[in-house]
Amino acid sequence: MADKFLSLRNMKFMIHEVLNAENLTQYPYFEDHSGESFDLVLETAAKIAQGLLRPNLKVMDENPPELVDGRVKVQPSVKDFMKECGEGGWIAATAPYDLEGQQLPEVMKASFSFIFAAANYSASVYPMLTTGAANLIESFGTEELKQTYIPKMFSGEWQGTMAMTEPQAGSSLSDIVTRAEPTDEGYYKIWGQKIFISGGDHDGADNVVNLMLAKIKGAPAGVKGISLFVVPRLRPNEAGGLEPNDVTVATVFHKLGYRGCPITQLSMGEQNNCRGWLIGEANRGLAYMFQMMNEARIAVGVGAAGIASAAYYAALDYAKERPQGRKPGAKDPTLPPIPIIEHADVKRMLLFQRAVVEGSVALLLQCALYHDYQRVTEGEERDKYSLLLDLLTPVAKTYPSEMGILSCSQGLQILGGYGYCDEFPLEQFYRDCRIHPIHEGTTGIHGLDLLGRKVVMKNGQAYQHYLGEVQKTIQGGKTNPLLEPYANRLEQAVTKLQDVTHQLIEISRTKGSELFLADATLYLEAFGIIAIAWQWLIMGLAASRALEPGLSEVEAPFYRGKLQTMKYFFHYELVKVDGLFQRLLEGDGLTVETNESHFMD
Amino acid sequence: MADKFLSLRNMKFMIHEVLNAENLTQYPYFEDHSGESFDLVLETAAKIAQGLLRPNLKVMDENPPELVDGRVKVQPSVKDFMKECGEGGWIAATAPYDLEGQQLPEVMKASFSFIFAAANYSASVYPMLTTGAANLIESFGTEELKQTYIPKMFSGEWQGTMAMTEPQAGSSLSDIVTRAEPTDEGYYKIWGQKIFISGGDHDGADNVVNLMLAKIKGAPAGVKGISLFVVPRLRPNEAGGLEPNDVTVATVFHKLGYRGCPITQLSMGEQNNCRGWLIGEANRGLAYMFQMMNEARIAVGVGAAGIASAAYYAALDYAKERPQGRKPGAKDPTLPPIPIIEHADVKRMLLFQRAVVEGSVALLLQCALYHDYQRVTEGEERDKYSLLLDLLTPVAKTYPSEMGILSCSQGLQILGGYGYCDEFPLEQFYRDCRIHPIHEGTTGIHGLDLLGRKVVMKNGQAYQHYLGEVQKTIQGGKTNPLLEPYANRLEQAVTKLQDVTHQLIEISRTKGSELFLADATLYLEAFGIIAIAWQWLIMGLAASRALEPGLSEVEAPFYRGKLQTMKYFFHYELVKVDGLFQRLLEGDGLTVETNESHFMD
Repeated sequence: MADKFLSLRNMKFMIHEVLNAENLTQYPYFEDHSGESFDLVLETAAKIAQGLLRPNLKVMDENPPELVDGRVKVQPSVKDFMKECGEGGWIAATAPYDLEGQQLPEVMKASFSFIFAAANYSASVYPMLTTGAANLIESFGTEELKQTYIPKMFSGEWQGTMAMTEPQAGSSLSDIVTRAEPTDEGYYKIWGQKIFISGGDHDGADNVVNLMLAKIKGAPAGVKGISLFVVPRLRPNEAGGLEPNDVTVATVFHKLGYRGCPITQLSMGEQNNCRGWLIGEANRGLAYMFQMMNEARIAVGVGAAGIASAAYYAALDYAKERPQGRKPGAKDPTLPPIPIIEHADVKRMLLFQRAVVEGSVALLLQCALYHDYQRVTEGEERDKYSLLLDLLTPVAKTYPSEMGILSCSQGLQILGGYGYCDEFPLEQFYRDCRIHPIHEGTTGIHGLDLLGRKVVMKNGQAYQHYLGEVQKTIQGGKTNPLLEPYANRLEQAVTKLQDVTHQLIEISRTKGSELFLADATLYLEAFGIIAIAWQWLIMGLAASRALEPGLSEVEAPFYRGKLQTMKYFFHYELVKVDGLFQRLLEGDGLTVETNESHFMD
Repeated sequence: MADKFLSLRNMKFMIHEVLNAENLTQYPYFEDHSGESFDLVLETAAKIAQGLLRPNLKVMDENPPELVDGRVKVQPSVKDFMKECGEGGWIAATAPYDLEGQQLPEVMKASFSFIFAAANYSASVYPMLTTGAANLIESFGTEELKQTYIPKMFSGEWQGTMAMTEPQAGSSLSDIVTRAEPTDEGYYKIWGQKIFISGGDHDGADNVVNLMLAKIKGAPAGVKGISLFVVPRLRPNEAGGLEPNDVTVATVFHKLGYRGCPITQLSMGEQNNCRGWLIGEANRGLAYMFQMMNEARIAVGVGAAGIASAAYYAALDYAKERPQGRKPGAKDPTLPPIPIIEHADVKRMLLFQRAVVEGSVALLLQCALYHDYQRVTEGEERDKYSLLLDLLTPVAKTYPSEMGILSCSQGLQILGGYGYCDEFPLEQFYRDCRIHPIHEGTTGIHGLDLLGRKVVMKNGQAYQHYLGEVQKTIQGGKTNPLLEPYANRLEQAVTKLQDVTHQLIEISRTKGSELFLADATLYLEAFGIIAIAWQWLIMGLAASRALEPGLSEVEAPFYRGKLQTMKYFFHYELVKVDGLFQRLLEGDGLTVETNESHFMD
């Protein structure tokens, strides 16, 4: 199939053979599901992706959203897809039955989101944001807010958004200035500007429900004074209809990629008539918002892995079909050229792409599964899953985002000059994927989050749980002669990670946090590579179990390819941590001591 | 200056303090030049870049070439710039006086080409290609060909191109099928298709002079049967005018970036009326073309470094102006936010960009200087410069190309969401620079060229000369207490390079060329990092010499910044060779043994 953009085989391998997601169905919340119903979810999502999403990939790129008479016009297919996502229960997939949800596990949501993103990342964002916003109202909103907003959001009629960033604040949420003033009517009046709001307005939805951070008059400075509001584009009025809520679109940004989804600047209260409804308690907004942010961070990783998957299959398809050149040492020009997939360097690039895609998917689904266990377990067990999810969220957001760019770039490279031209989709993937290290927290922010918060929080508990999980996998690998060398390599890398972490924490104690965190981005990079190596060893174990003697030649190549890609990862990717650790151990503060005068001239 | 795109200060540092290019003027060919005239070249180029090129950067991107009635329409500024390049002597800069050239050194051509490329890469390609094509006619063409074509090309009226690739052949030139049949009239008849021809047609030039590879009927198979022809779009007729030469534009490609310059598919002989004029001897065309290819490879490196320079200054400018966040440990939200250039991670990214830009420029100018010495020296000395240039050409093409992408990407990252939007130029640089690892030989091809040809050619002579040059720099560094640790680091890396090279050659002897070359791309990457570290040590020595006590605070910061960036390179970039060498030493043939079945499903 020339238009393949993901491997359903791999998704089933992950769900059944690696993660054993069926295990969740022994818990009451998930008891109506089964391995078969999980497969049905995957297959149905793939059909929608193929039928509704992929055909609109290019047309949405070529016809980006435009601001027309104060509304953002998007392609008509957006409305169709949102309707499908409402009717098919995709937006409400993980919500409880009492909200008309499906009580599906997060691991299945991550799986179908990946399928949608691989087909058309921009399109996949609309329902994803709506789910996150609705879930947030569900978790912390009043009964009235729930009844007013959630049904219309779950049905795909109303778009949800996440409205945090402001022009002057950027990543620094403590500096937001959007104001809220209480009234006697149960709502607040809102004034402010929000920037870079995905889906902040579009004509594919009847209404837009912004989950917005603002500061209530008199609130404490910084993040401790941030509250969370529902600020819809149209507000329900007493007549049971909707009326404008003084939320206007100031700008639709023209962007490098991700062009099928509008990123907007919103202006609230220009006519002193914008109303917001408080969610939860005042001044606790950022803590609430973290629920949506953490969901969105995993979703960004999923989106990045999805685009990288599409780029991988596009490059693979080309590499199989395109004849060019001959092997070194077989230069006879009268012989026909070979397909480029036979060149070692092209195979290396394809293995890289696949290793990034499937390694990323594995880590993301692992996180989603922790989320599910956190939901259904209790006490210490619950704490453990919660800590693991917290620790790995910046990693699962960043590795696919950063490596997705390199992976799409390698895919483009495999096509040579054709990769640079818009007859092939690689150039779009290369543009689309560049958003991911930026939105939902830049890579730099996640480096600080991982090293400065997650690794050290609760006396390193999350980090210790993680090391324990990795160690379990290593022990499993050591019992298998084929995998033993890889288990040993992972063990060495983890030992080094522990040394480096220990030394960095020493620096934090003795020399302060600026030096401690100076190379946090490099720490995140190394941590990410090791986490993916861990996932590859887990996949290697599952593939090795499946590759019993006598396995049919229909089934066997998939597992052999899995093991080959695992080997690639250890031989070519895991080795990169050495240089990173070398740098991290120097602790000389080179960048800290650098100042603006060093950049003169 | 908000619109800075390169450092003229750095160019002068390179020409005078690092390369001592004035030394060339002791040779008769360059005797009319001086250090002052070199400065004038740089300053005049910078004025043209500022006045004619930079203002058209965005408009050329937004209005890419289109095929209208068989002609490629480009922006009118292209014609203006070509006229300026003709009148100002930029196209003929390095040509001898008897061809109305300026006898400028290549190191100055590389310098002003860098300035043009930093202002507007697409625009810079038109004169660059014309120079290369004219030089090729000069080197190997008949007197008649020279008189017919060179003056019009040097004047900027006629465009030169390099027409090699074909749709079915791609990088494999041995498989080209464009045919040439001799006639009794002194010309050949030509039939064929050429693809991805930069500047292959446009209305900014009165004529297009394609330097085209084709096979004469009955020629040997493969590269030994390739001949070189001049195939103009319009051919001179007996009446002294020009007439169509049956060269038609089949396609103008729509591309990711580099949109100011057309890449075309050309069709020759559709009406059996296309004529080509043989250059030099039959079947020796590829050897001749290598002159233009090698020039173009350096030019690609220069172009990549130019775009990366523009991206660096755009990011630097933003980082100085943009307030956001506070330092770790100084989280008081009532204090004003700091400019992001004060964050260690942003400084790291800026140092990375600068290290790539200035390291690349240094290696490229070093190559250009070898070219100059090759022109004016003789015997063993000449051979040495020629070998060094041959060896380093794939490195000087590839390092800036590959790292230019990462460098532009980091620049975009510094701007966060703004970097992704087209209000700022970063997204264009990110698109423009992606062409460089593709054109003039992909990175994979250059890996094979470096390891499979250049390192081993003539019993490793070129490689030995190179090691000698690096060793000289290391010895110089060791005499300076500040630089000694860096000299030692470089020495260790070079020692490791020698081990790895030795082991790879052993593999070549014992296990054949496929295994030997399997990871040639990684070898090229490591080789490139070391070559740039070498250049940084050279620059560090020059900066250290200049930083005498008592140097004014106007002058000193430049040199301090230079040293800081050198340190960055050693601490953050040179360490990357360890992982690469680790992989290169494994020699397990993982990618060689991988086959298509591993990519099933």
